[in-house]
Amino acid sequence: MSVLIVGSVALDYLETPFGKMDQALGGSATFCSIAASYLTENIRMVGIVGEDFPQAHVDYFASRNIDTLGLERVEGGKTFSWGGRYHEDMNTRDTLYTVLGVFEHFHPVIPDEWKKSEFVLLGNIHPSLQLEVLDQVEEPKLVVCDTMNLWIDISLKELKQVLKRVNVLVLNDEEARMLTGERNIFNAGKKMLRMGPSVIVIKKGEHGAVLLSKDTTFIAPAFPLGGFKDPTGAGDTFAGGFIGWLERTGDVSVANMRKAVVYGSVLASFCVEEFSIEGIRELSEEQIAERFGIFRTLSTF
Amino acid sequence: MSVLIVGSVALDYLETPFGKMDQALGGSATFCSIAASYLTENIRMVGIVGEDFPQAHVDYFASRNIDTLGLERVEGGKTFSWGGRYHEDMNTRDTLYTVLGVFEHFHPVIPDEWKKSEFVLLGNIHPSLQLEVLDQVEEPKLVVCDTMNLWIDISLKELKQVLKRVNVLVLNDEEARMLTGERNIFNAGKKMLRMGPSVIVIKKGEHGAVLLSKDTTFIAPAFPLGGFKDPTGAGDTFAGGFIGWLERTGDVSVANMRKAVVYGSVLASFCVEEFSIEGIRELSEEQIAERFGIFRTLSTF
Repeated sequence: MSVLIVGSVALDYLETPFGKMDQALGGSATFCSIAASYLTENIRMVGIVGEDFPQAHVDYFASRNIDTLGLERVEGGKTFSWGGRYHEDMNTRDTLYTVLGVFEHFHPVIPDEWKKSEFVLLGNIHPSLQLEVLDQVEEPKLVVCDTMNLWIDISLKELKQVLKRVNVLVLNDEEARMLTGERNIFNAGKKMLRMGPSVIVIKKGEHGAVLLSKDTTFIAPAFPLGGFKDPTGAGDTFAGGFIGWLERTGDVSVANMRKAVVYGSVLASFCVEEFSIEGIRELSEEQIAERFGIFRTLSTF
Repeated sequence: MSVLIVGSVALDYLETPFGKMDQALGGSATFCSIAASYLTENIRMVGIVGEDFPQAHVDYFASRNIDTLGLERVEGGKTFSWGGRYHEDMNTRDTLYTVLGVFEHFHPVIPDEWKKSEFVLLGNIHPSLQLEVLDQVEEPKLVVCDTMNLWIDISLKELKQVLKRVNVLVLNDEEARMLTGERNIFNAGKKMLRMGPSVIVIKKGEHGAVLLSKDTTFIAPAFPLGGFKDPTGAGDTFAGGFIGWLERTGDVSVANMRKAVVYGSVLASFCVEEFSIEGIRELSEEQIAERFGIFRTLSTF
């Protein structure tokens, strides 16, 4: 089995109260794929980069068994870049700039031999591009979709078309409220379950994550961290860990998705501890197992 | 064994987006005692009311096995009253008025036969009054202290004296940040553990509660509610359920405090569903057991 991951690949500029970093490897496909790579070896990445994208990053992907056959490289093109500055409280941020570069004319092309991928993660990109991916894949076992406030704001119609065709929607609490007009996340969850997905996962940052289906409410705490340096990519990392566990086990039951939420949370906890991908660049099985074990004790009574 | 509960008894005016209520039974001792009464029958209430305090409320306390020997009644006096209006988001509120009435000259007097109470709950009142209680009780097995932002603001010195003499501090996340200057609640918890208590319980409202000791981190979700009508007294109710369980079992280990947090959360979930004490006025054992059981499944993976 394998996971097909489609999303952005970026060279970002990040500024938080703890420092700054230029030319930082980022993008939804990047974080999703690296996170998933700690749980499965069968990762197929689809995205686009420009001529400026360092070969070292491509080599790093390969070292983590991330297949980049679907990563298009445009000669003379410039890689997508986002510049952001986080405020003192780390809960809000300003976009300093967005340079689309090669992303402006991107249309994901799924290699023929990848069209039968069993697990598909539609990383956070424009819903129209997510639809193009859905039109190319053949009877996937599970489709997980991530999104963001921008698309709810400017492409709601396309996003709703996507939602009709996915199994799991992953988004944060603010986005859940935007999408449904419901302040209460359980009521928001009920509304989203009527939009198509049979499972909704709402990420609440430092307050953990909630998984909702018709019959299930699962609430996971966030890993207790004394602080963090850069929240960029935490949501993508969560989604990658989530689908990685499901692919590894081949079990898409809601019961198994509880564990998937915890793996997503474990990987996101490492992600935020350092800038860019540094927190998840090189993790050992032991590090992941240790935090997973702590999660077991956190809510036990 | 028995629980001694000291705090305010009030007739409040409440206004939320869901309605309003005048002459509403309230006060920290009220909510704490009612909540504890679902877990133990040995509750000793110390507080003060005026001549206007309806006998029906005193009778109700008696019907729940709450001993009001320590509830002073001042002839000609007026019962403490707080008027508050909650904003649309229910997270913030304005104080419309505060009438101290008989509370202005209140000094808690612990009846002689209650001075050896094993469990003491210092409900949310001025820290100087909490100190007066501590001076009267004799070697309690466990002292739990609640407080609020007002006392951190205007009586920090006295509050710090209280903290040196209690085992467990219960407060909300905003208060934890105010008291320590730490935004991160785990760091705030570490600082508070150095102030005296060996256990800190931080209430996070809809995001649940966190219990911290030197060696333990326990994170409980909040009960998943589709909405609530009036958050007044939820924190007091939590504290009452918390100490009620500890008294019932006689076990003050940190492991047992995890269950106590869940009982506190269960009772608080009923409290917020109706105005004033109506949500917890008459609960069955089955109702409480059902929500406790749901808590068991909420975070299991």
